[in-house]
Amino acid sequence: MEKKRMGQQSVVFSSHPYIVAGASIVGKLEGEGPLGQCYDTVLDDDLWGEKTWEMAERKMYEQAITEVIRKAALPLESVQLLLGGDLLNQIISANFAARNLGIPFLGLYGACSNMAESLLVGGMLVDGGYVENAVCGTCSHFSTAERQYRTPLELGTQRTPTAQRTVTGAAASLLCSTRSQAQGAAVYIAGGTIGKVVDMGITDVNNMGAAMAPAAADTIAMHLAEMAYDVEHYDLYVTGDLGSLGLSLCTELLQEKGYDMAGRIIDCGCEVYNARKQDVDAGGSGCGCSAVVFNAHILPQMQKGAYGRVLFVATGALLSPASSMQGESIPGIAHAVALERETSS
Amino acid sequence: MEKKRMGQQSVVFSSHPYIVAGASIVGKLEGEGPLGQCYDTVLDDDLWGEKTWEMAERKMYEQAITEVIRKAALPLESVQLLLGGDLLNQIISANFAARNLGIPFLGLYGACSNMAESLLVGGMLVDGGYVENAVCGTCSHFSTAERQYRTPLELGTQRTPTAQRTVTGAAASLLCSTRSQAQGAAVYIAGGTIGKVVDMGITDVNNMGAAMAPAAADTIAMHLAEMAYDVEHYDLYVTGDLGSLGLSLCTELLQEKGYDMAGRIIDCGCEVYNARKQDVDAGGSGCGCSAVVFNAHILPQMQKGAYGRVLFVATGALLSPASSMQGESIPGIAHAVALERETSS
Repeated sequence: MEKKRMGQQSVVFSSHPYIVAGASIVGKLEGEGPLGQCYDTVLDDDLWGEKTWEMAERKMYEQAITEVIRKAALPLESVQLLLGGDLLNQIISANFAARNLGIPFLGLYGACSNMAESLLVGGMLVDGGYVENAVCGTCSHFSTAERQYRTPLELGTQRTPTAQRTVTGAAASLLCSTRSQAQGAAVYIAGGTIGKVVDMGITDVNNMGAAMAPAAADTIAMHLAEMAYDVEHYDLYVTGDLGSLGLSLCTELLQEKGYDMAGRIIDCGCEVYNARKQDVDAGGSGCGCSAVVFNAHILPQMQKGAYGRVLFVATGALLSPASSMQGESIPGIAHAVALERETSS
Repeated sequence: MEKKRMGQQSVVFSSHPYIVAGASIVGKLEGEGPLGQCYDTVLDDDLWGEKTWEMAERKMYEQAITEVIRKAALPLESVQLLLGGDLLNQIISANFAARNLGIPFLGLYGACSNMAESLLVGGMLVDGGYVENAVCGTCSHFSTAERQYRTPLELGTQRTPTAQRTVTGAAASLLCSTRSQAQGAAVYIAGGTIGKVVDMGITDVNNMGAAMAPAAADTIAMHLAEMAYDVEHYDLYVTGDLGSLGLSLCTELLQEKGYDMAGRIIDCGCEVYNARKQDVDAGGSGCGCSAVVFNAHILPQMQKGAYGRVLFVATGALLSPASSMQGESIPGIAHAVALERETSS
């Protein structure tokens, strides 16, 4: 068998699990952001006709899954696997969407690292031949996350400058073992790095970027070391939702490890909003943040040829109100997904 | 490549991902149950010297992981992957244990189906060559689950006859791509079936067995159909935590589908307690239930030769206080893991 394992955390694929389509749906504020034109659907109202925000979030998740399957022109019943989760307790958005869609389902929990975790696991299962296709998707909603993790919105609590805004959005990618010519330039997953839980002792629930930055730096450095790549191997490094503060911390930590990321690293939390104009402090966060930026912006850019190789590193703050109240700090995790553009068809 | 996919939900492995060891730890009541002699550790006190039940649950999870690695005589740093989750919001038991152990980590959420979900995903990743070994583990704790899902224990709420008791316990299995002769008769994962979310409209949070039984029946029937097996192919079917009521519902549903399970099916929720003597109503439940019964009882029985082929079907009730309060029913899911004993070494 070909060598698929590199070092302790990295994997290399022997086939090309193609990302044949991506789909996204976002809330009003996200639609007004710099990537507003990129999303498949922008809502006028974050309740989307539902009685509760949780129901709206679930509907968005289901919509993203349905849309990506439609784009790939696959019949729903031929989809072999749904992989994903979300931020809500018991990942109810994903569970209930999986119920309604009837696709075989593996629930994941990695907080905001979910888009990378699901792509990485999905990539292994497609590359390994266990499924021919898999939908990987996740979502988050500002209003459900605030009341679950922080305070009821009705309180009108003032936000700190380090705070990030949970993105209201859902997105999904469809992986296939074969590519269809109709689907444009082929982007595939070449491998990746499974993250470790890293905790530098951050306890401020309004500073998720600082909690996640060490995990992102750890995973990126581990990936480059285990794969024996120079920084230049990738045209672009895309972190999940570190926000402006977290991104600069991550860059500093990588500098200390000897990696100069200058001009090569962006963060989905910084891309998704115009932080100053839209008054969102340090940027965006939430499972939906890296998911919508990846599927609506990074993937199409790769398909158009803007980048040949991208390392997508979604980050998760494993924040829990229960563990925080019991005095614990906030651990972080980051999984890296190596994406390449197929140059010859 | 060999065919690894059967039908829409089932997978077959081309190698033998061995379960080289299992480890378990349980609370006092579980230790007094019929399998009391089988567990590696039985606690005197479910707080285990910690300040909170959540901290005790996490310590148990960490202990099960550490113990299974010790049994397999592997250095901690050579363990390539930890797969698992638990019942607590944001799977804090698994997240914090993963932080303390420093093993690359993929978090899963499938409620009480976690032991089967982690074995199935772990089996695919070992069989596919992405990791040489993986620890699959999960846990639950009566006192943390009651206060998260139902009512504070201090209320002393009366239980219904359909209620099941969340098992206080943690367990883990260690998967390896190779077997060591020292580890006794070899049990391996031959394949399995990824479950779909099934919901028959149960809304009673005190009747999890009824919520999960349709999912278990669906997955078992799908497995047998897709693999083209007779019921007799397996010596034993082990469902996760249906309890006495759920087990009889599941058996009835399978009868309707044409499968006569008589004398071939047991449920971990029925095995873990002596329901009448121990006053636990319909039996045990929780991620820990199927995990401890599998690792402390089923796996050793297979190693001793009592069974050649077992289908392990852990079941999850995707119960959520938030979705229940918003009027939703309780969906269920079940994943099947096909276990075989290697007859020639």
